[in-house]
Amino acid sequence: MQELIKYGKKIVTAGLAHSHFGNVSKRVGDQMLISTTGSMLDELDGQIVTVPIDSASPDELDVIASTEVNVHRAIYKATSALAILHGHSKYAVVESLLHESQIVPEDSESIYFLHEIPVVTGGIGSEELARNAASALRDHKGTIVRGHGTFARGATVDEAFVILSSIEHACMVKYLLDTARKS
Amino acid sequence: MQELIKYGKKIVTAGLAHSHFGNVSKRVGDQMLISTTGSMLDELDGQIVTVPIDSASPDELDVIASTEVNVHRAIYKATSALAILHGHSKYAVVESLLHESQIVPEDSESIYFLHEIPVVTGGIGSEELARNAASALRDHKGTIVRGHGTFARGATVDEAFVILSSIEHACMVKYLLDTARKS
Amino acid sequence: MQELIKYGKKIVTAGLAHSHFGNVSKRVGDQMLISTTGSMLDELDGQIVTVPIDSASPDELDVIASTEVNVHRAIYKATSALAILHGHSKYAVVESLLHESQIVPEDSESIYFLHEIPVVTGGIGSEELARNAASALRDHKGTIVRGHGTFARGATVDEAFVILSSIEHACMVKYLLDTARKS
Amino acid sequence: MQELIKYGKKIVTAGLAHSHFGNVSKRVGDQMLISTTGSMLDELDGQIVTVPIDSASPDELDVIASTEVNVHRAIYKATSALAILHGHSKYAVVESLLHESQIVPEDSESIYFLHEIPVVTGGIGSEELARNAASALRDHKGTIVRGHGTFARGATVDEAFVILSSIEHACMVKYLLDTARKS
Repeated sequence: MQELIKYGKKIVTAGLAHSHFGNVSKRVGDQMLISTTGSMLDELDGQIVTVPIDSASPDELDVIASTEVNVHRAIYKATSALAILHGHSKYAVVESLLHESQIVPEDSESIYFLHEIPVVTGGIGSEELARNAASALRDHKGTIVRGHGTFARGATVDEAFVILSSIEHACMVKYLLDTARKS
Repeated sequence: MQELIKYGKKIVTAGLAHSHFGNVSKRVGDQMLISTTGSMLDELDGQIVTVPIDSASPDELDVIASTEVNVHRAIYKATSALAILHGHSKYAVVESLLHESQIVPEDSESIYFLHEIPVVTGGIGSEELARNAASALRDHKGTIVRGHGTFARGATVDEAFVILSSIEHACMVKYLLDTARKS
Repeated sequence: MQELIKYGKKIVTAGLAHSHFGNVSKRVGDQMLISTTGSMLDELDGQIVTVPIDSASPDELDVIASTEVNVHRAIYKATSALAILHGHSKYAVVESLLHESQIVPEDSESIYFLHEIPVVTGGIGSEELARNAASALRDHKGTIVRGHGTFARGATVDEAFVILSSIEHACMVKYLLDTARKS
Repeated sequence: MQELIKYGKKIVTAGLAHSHFGNVSKRVGDQMLISTTGSMLDELDGQIVTVPIDSASPDELDVIASTEVNVHRAIYKATSALAILHGHSKYAVVESLLHESQIVPEDSESIYFLHEIPVVTGGIGSEELARNAASALRDHKGTIVRGHGTFARGATVDEAFVILSSIEHACMVKYLLDTARKS
């Protein structure tokens, strides 16, 4: 839990999410710790609940868990992820609206770590979004929901943070390059 | 009062206001707590005064309250707001000078939470500004005064912060998208 | 001295200077407290010396004072300033290289507080720079040395910080507006 | 060691590196203190190891040292550097992909301190990268590996930080100027 609190603060400090947008979770067996709906990522103390991974047996705490708990569930079921971070970083959102199905990074670090970044679609909180994000994360460590934000997975919260942060890095570098070349 | 002090710091840290620009208030019955004129939002300790909502019965503390106390009064009278935050965030100011009467966000989060962002006019400290901002906030949670900055309202200081922050997010995303498409 | 240490940190946190660039001073009678050469503005504890305003009677501490002490002297002699802050903020530097003799802000706050921002020339550490900056600050509260950075004056360190910060605000807003209109 | 921990934090706070990218080292005789592979620069406590400068006598700790330890070794052998900082700052990466062999700064500070910034090539972790970076740093205090990031050297960690920070300053100013002129 301390880990989620710590990385919540790091996400906000790094500009990868703002105010009450974004959410974080960590898998522990067949349950997950997840931030509550409406909580601010830089103030998660007392704002983390435990709910089951399996949506067939929802917990009474489901009602206060992040409204995107369904996306986290779908990702944990479809992948080996043990941690998921979701942020609304600005260049990722922008690039997802400028590219159809994927973003191909141009900086060495992102080419090496991310290969390409799939862009998926789906309304906020919808099952379509949950399905598409989970599907994209089978083969990639991060994905951007078009116009919405990034979901990053990892074997640890730390690893998911590296992916969340790298996707914003890749998108900002690519945006600046494309703007310079086109102008 | 501690809440206003805390959110004053958060506003500056998030880059939503700078130096002594911006002001914050909270309604308590028929009075409001408001930051003093010339105070720095990240150092509001000892810089908050209580004045009446009704401008017909101004308090002697009015002279040290924010010079935009008239805007706060007009908003509290016209709406159900219990908190108002005002900041000079850069992309909001820029977008308000590029769009005539409203800004239509393109990211999902802003479409969902803000719908559109009305742009109003009025000289700094003028009754026209107070009237226009209050009028725009009847139907919206935030508005941008052209070339000046954002006023956000909420049932709580927390909610007003989400709106202030979301408007800058929406404006930065839109600015970057428009620049990329036009270049 | 505590005031200079505090505002040194605020300048770096606000992105108005970086690493060891920039310097700060405060007038006390016919002397000034000034940051030492090579000191980091966010770590000024133990890095502030007192030297005379009058350059005809330099102090032995002159050798460790900021290499731009001559600019501070010229400004204190030419104006009523009691505090001077100098930073290398990025948009101010950029705008000073894009505009010949002055920058005319477009946001209400900067129009109201700054009117226009004079751009002056002069090599780093030169008497020409000192003379030009001092001359510009007779009628303005801030000036940008072309390609170099901003000098802001005030009756207090606080006021000089507002000017330093406002000039960057004005320049960033103007840069973004001009880029959007031209593209 | 405290110095590396402190500057690791400053690098992240200043936005010159993110998550676990970037690394730092300091030469002490024929050994160097260097951050471990995968460590976060803002959390280096307990994440610094000592390995020999001479790669002919690698230490068992080599396996946990930064994967770019070979670049640090090559630089220490080729130059008088006593400290090396490596970060992935965004405008440096962008400018290195827009310019063939070097970046010529336009702001006075960078012209004075950096002259020009050589751009070198080489795959992540390769001997080619190590050789090229070391060669470029014989005559310059900093270099950018194309699409990857900046290596800065100094007689002290402090000096290397000034160079790392100045290169990002130079690149951001140049990027903004070029975009404004071309649009």
